[in-house]
Amino acid sequence: MTRFDCDYMAGAHPEILKVINENNRIQTPGYGEDSFCDEARELIRKACGKPDAQVYFLVGGTQTNAAVLDCILPHTRGVLSTETGHINVHEAGAIEFSGHKVLSLPSHDGRMDSSELRDWIQKFNADDTRMHMVAPGAVYISFPTELGTVYSRDELESLYGVCREAGLPLFIDGARLGYGLAASFELDLKDIANLCDVFYIGGTKMGALFGEAVVCTRPDLMKDFFTLMKARGSVLAKGRLLGMQFARFFRDDLYLEIGKHGVKMALELRDILESKGFRTFIDSPTNQQFFVLPNKVADRLLREVSFEFWGPRTEEESQVRFVTSWETTQEDIDRLASLL
Amino acid sequence: MTRFDCDYMAGAHPEILKVINENNRIQTPGYGEDSFCDEARELIRKACGKPDAQVYFLVGGTQTNAAVLDCILPHTRGVLSTETGHINVHEAGAIEFSGHKVLSLPSHDGRMDSSELRDWIQKFNADDTRMHMVAPGAVYISFPTELGTVYSRDELESLYGVCREAGLPLFIDGARLGYGLAASFELDLKDIANLCDVFYIGGTKMGALFGEAVVCTRPDLMKDFFTLMKARGSVLAKGRLLGMQFARFFRDDLYLEIGKHGVKMALELRDILESKGFRTFIDSPTNQQFFVLPNKVADRLLREVSFEFWGPRTEEESQVRFVTSWETTQEDIDRLASLL
Amino acid sequence: MTRFDCDYMAGAHPEILKVINENNRIQTPGYGEDSFCDEARELIRKACGKPDAQVYFLVGGTQTNAAVLDCILPHTRGVLSTETGHINVHEAGAIEFSGHKVLSLPSHDGRMDSSELRDWIQKFNADDTRMHMVAPGAVYISFPTELGTVYSRDELESLYGVCREAGLPLFIDGARLGYGLAASFELDLKDIANLCDVFYIGGTKMGALFGEAVVCTRPDLMKDFFTLMKARGSVLAKGRLLGMQFARFFRDDLYLEIGKHGVKMALELRDILESKGFRTFIDSPTNQQFFVLPNKVADRLLREVSFEFWGPRTEEESQVRFVTSWETTQEDIDRLASLL
Amino acid sequence: MTRFDCDYMAGAHPEILKVINENNRIQTPGYGEDSFCDEARELIRKACGKPDAQVYFLVGGTQTNAAVLDCILPHTRGVLSTETGHINVHEAGAIEFSGHKVLSLPSHDGRMDSSELRDWIQKFNADDTRMHMVAPGAVYISFPTELGTVYSRDELESLYGVCREAGLPLFIDGARLGYGLAASFELDLKDIANLCDVFYIGGTKMGALFGEAVVCTRPDLMKDFFTLMKARGSVLAKGRLLGMQFARFFRDDLYLEIGKHGVKMALELRDILESKGFRTFIDSPTNQQFFVLPNKVADRLLREVSFEFWGPRTEEESQVRFVTSWETTQEDIDRLASLL
Repeated sequence: MTRFDCDYMAGAHPEILKVINENNRIQTPGYGEDSFCDEARELIRKACGKPDAQVYFLVGGTQTNAAVLDCILPHTRGVLSTETGHINVHEAGAIEFSGHKVLSLPSHDGRMDSSELRDWIQKFNADDTRMHMVAPGAVYISFPTELGTVYSRDELESLYGVCREAGLPLFIDGARLGYGLAASFELDLKDIANLCDVFYIGGTKMGALFGEAVVCTRPDLMKDFFTLMKARGSVLAKGRLLGMQFARFFRDDLYLEIGKHGVKMALELRDILESKGFRTFIDSPTNQQFFVLPNKVADRLLREVSFEFWGPRTEEESQVRFVTSWETTQEDIDRLASLL
Repeated sequence: MTRFDCDYMAGAHPEILKVINENNRIQTPGYGEDSFCDEARELIRKACGKPDAQVYFLVGGTQTNAAVLDCILPHTRGVLSTETGHINVHEAGAIEFSGHKVLSLPSHDGRMDSSELRDWIQKFNADDTRMHMVAPGAVYISFPTELGTVYSRDELESLYGVCREAGLPLFIDGARLGYGLAASFELDLKDIANLCDVFYIGGTKMGALFGEAVVCTRPDLMKDFFTLMKARGSVLAKGRLLGMQFARFFRDDLYLEIGKHGVKMALELRDILESKGFRTFIDSPTNQQFFVLPNKVADRLLREVSFEFWGPRTEEESQVRFVTSWETTQEDIDRLASLL
Repeated sequence: MTRFDCDYMAGAHPEILKVINENNRIQTPGYGEDSFCDEARELIRKACGKPDAQVYFLVGGTQTNAAVLDCILPHTRGVLSTETGHINVHEAGAIEFSGHKVLSLPSHDGRMDSSELRDWIQKFNADDTRMHMVAPGAVYISFPTELGTVYSRDELESLYGVCREAGLPLFIDGARLGYGLAASFELDLKDIANLCDVFYIGGTKMGALFGEAVVCTRPDLMKDFFTLMKARGSVLAKGRLLGMQFARFFRDDLYLEIGKHGVKMALELRDILESKGFRTFIDSPTNQQFFVLPNKVADRLLREVSFEFWGPRTEEESQVRFVTSWETTQEDIDRLASLL
Repeated sequence: MTRFDCDYMAGAHPEILKVINENNRIQTPGYGEDSFCDEARELIRKACGKPDAQVYFLVGGTQTNAAVLDCILPHTRGVLSTETGHINVHEAGAIEFSGHKVLSLPSHDGRMDSSELRDWIQKFNADDTRMHMVAPGAVYISFPTELGTVYSRDELESLYGVCREAGLPLFIDGARLGYGLAASFELDLKDIANLCDVFYIGGTKMGALFGEAVVCTRPDLMKDFFTLMKARGSVLAKGRLLGMQFARFFRDDLYLEIGKHGVKMALELRDILESKGFRTFIDSPTNQQFFVLPNKVADRLLREVSFEFWGPRTEEESQVRFVTSWETTQEDIDRLASLL
């Protein structure tokens, strides 16, 4: 079976596993107070061009989104997200579970539109009954989005402008950040760090065993975050494991290399499918590719290739998603090609 | 100033205030364990035709919705509501504040459509990723709705049928229940009690100083509710005040009489406005009336009459809401007529 | 039956009920945005000597304690209280229900000792594992305490000094504040306002139908409190009722007069019991009196007088509590005397 | 530096790391729905002698305690624990953060006494004001306790008896379960499974990279637990890692072997210290050893050996804790001996 279901089906990238093995017997304090975490924090600050940023490590994406938003949102406020935002769909209501409403805006292939955001805020502020409504306390977007798309520099600058104008911190979910950066012609890690208040660098989907690195550039925004993580059961005892992995990602350009590899594989897959006459239903430049396939083709492929059905299936055709990653090999792509 | 802003602008209906005065010096235990509450519970059970129903008294509507849903919803589940449901708009996120997502369905002039509800549930159950999504744990509707409309018997039976099929308790917010019952040709209090699992009989908007009475007909549904109310800060020390008021409402037909009076005033107001050539934008049979007025008319009226602007104002006309209640007098209506 | 169970067994003081009656038909906006509330806030600020204080009205004591602490406590922090503090015993865990641990200190007949508080804080700050522990975020005391005692000026100044040193806001639960002020030879309302950051003036136990008035003298401490109240279901629709009652309390010296009356009755009751040879087990100068009675006496009294058993009953004697209030008459006291 | 600070200072036991390496490139579904987790669940059920038990995997101890208690506790109820229980001290208030009060009982070197538990429950049930108090919803103990002690069979049977009588589920925190089982002469894993309703088998402190396995023998107790874990951000995407590790622990007797090794090292360490004339202040048979050392000795040791100070230091002596684990070697012990 050749697998294109998602980007966390195997263990870790060999280079990541290597550092875990190499340092296994070294003894350190727990809870992220070790030299591996220190090194990783330093490397991430440098890669972001933000020598004063706060960097925290957590284990998974839902955990990270929920903990960060629970920290930066004032007690009674909600978070603005697109309808398709991960926090609004596939995190089992973790944000509401923490007491905060997700306020939803339209999705443009996963992206939030800055003028729609501005209009929403203006309408809210003009509403005489707003004291009885949930006020926004932050804005959440994903880069790349859940639908594989990325924001242009202009789009992200506009969005962040609206956020600053409104006094709302902008939080970027970077579960697949490396694939997004590899796909963008305009934005690098330093730009991301400049165009929001807090974001996370996803590890789990980028070849870590697990782990996400939160980067916060506003010193006032995340007070008491360690204790909040602890109270939420989100502190890893052997925090060193997170430090080792992220130090390895950023010791050289491994993180970006993995992103580039995933995207390269995705674009080859796309070329092959398009050359066979199939069409995409979302135009994604990243490691997720969305195609309409005749049911006959989809069903035949499924015998030897795995992928996800995305949305409803009609009598004749299905929307499907292929995901590549650090795990995807040229052989996987060739194999898919040979089956079409 | 003649006021049509809302239905809680004055104190209490004279009959209600009378019992509070008459019984002021009688000493009783606190927290609802007094004979006034006992009497009120008995009268409500009888009026509902449910001798075994549990009856609880709370102080206000948001408090009641939040406490009931916090009790009947399983820990991680959400509640289905129309987009315009009070819990989804004007309760400052009280449901999410308790940890539960409001899952929204389209509003048909405030009403939920039973086949849309069935479709939503079927789609959810067919979704392979549903373990990562918020499952519904209850259905919330209002009777009458926030837009003044009521459900027909057929509509409510269908809705309740879908709920039972899906194993979801149906909760009816009856903040204005008396006005809804007065407007319905098909449903009385006993029907309401038969066509849901738990509902509340609104007092605040019906002429009480404050107070809502929760009626639950399923003995398994609301375990430990007293302690939950207490932990939520929702138990009134002098619970007797709630008992006195609801006993008075149901000692004779006062509750329904107040409803009828409010609706009669509303329909007169509607006749007058329609006879002057203005049109409604929602067809409401209850104590809220929704009209489109030319801005010139609206602005002139505002000098002597108060009402709410509802939705956006164009250059030429405005959507406005008039609310009648137990407070509205024939003189108020005549005065409005004379101003048109 | 002559009742000494508690101080909320009847309705409202006649003067309070009078204003509710007089203003019943006046129409006002809801939710505390009315002129009665404005007047009450102004009178309270004046009585406290704090022209800039924020004043909020809530319905009951548990609701008030939970909402205020939920507002002033940082997200992961706990509140320091004596073991016998109301929030630690008789509020059904409302503080923990809001996510905050109650950190308990010894009770000295209900009082917190300032040097014990200082020691606790120093020990906490010296603990290397404190990042894994609940840090204190506020200090809670009651005035008078749950055991009827009051703090001397020295004691309260010391406590507040320790709090300020530690950067912890001090919150005083004043459920029975009027009785405490009437009993204190050293502290008046202005002193209370000067010797803490936020406190509440209890109404329910002082002759209001219901209602507590929160006074906050630190402008930074209670941001977004209205929305928090709303999200907690703690905003009264007809907020005017709270305004009317507190305006009446403070329009002249009614609030303090009621306190004095309750304390006068309590001291007479005490004199009578002591003159009959019974002894107190707590030395309370306020409206709660704690006596050890032989079981034979207690049981005989119970046929005609109600009071609470307090703590365990031995074979020979019982600890009991008598409570007086605005409701207690000279006849009640004389009747008790005649029964001994 | 020879380290005796705690039992999670290095990475993983070599056998554990081996399976992670061996299976790194195998692709599986996420979130615990893989064959490694299936195998681990089966092996654990067998080792516990409970073929129908539910088994769940989580990442860390605080996360596990908080998620399990949040699941099994009714909404408004608290959990009974000793004062020294991990949930009551070193989890940053995670239980209260989830809305539940920790109700504390005395600690007998970490143990809860069954007759004290019975008395507490009886006193609670006899209290007329209990509806205003936090009712217990579960009992929490640790095996071994935070102070290294274990329960005898008699003690555990008595405790569980009291719990069943009172209708309270008993939850055992087994963060160091393997060390406890190795130290007990009377209880094995099957006994633990029989003498409580839910417990967890600790991995993190027993040589896993991370991970804890919850075992629940009551089918009704943990409904919707997967979604609760998800909503709490406690589901690991690559759940396979948890499955691999626990399958390895229980494929042969590795888990118990590690426990035995840790205990053997601890007892040697104890013998050495006692032979040098130092005395324990807690009599622990497990991998934590508690000694009183003259400050001079403690300070000298600290130059080459790490351990924790436990409790206050007097002018002359200190209470210290030494922890052994799978990491501790005979050389570590010999080295310590040579330094005394």
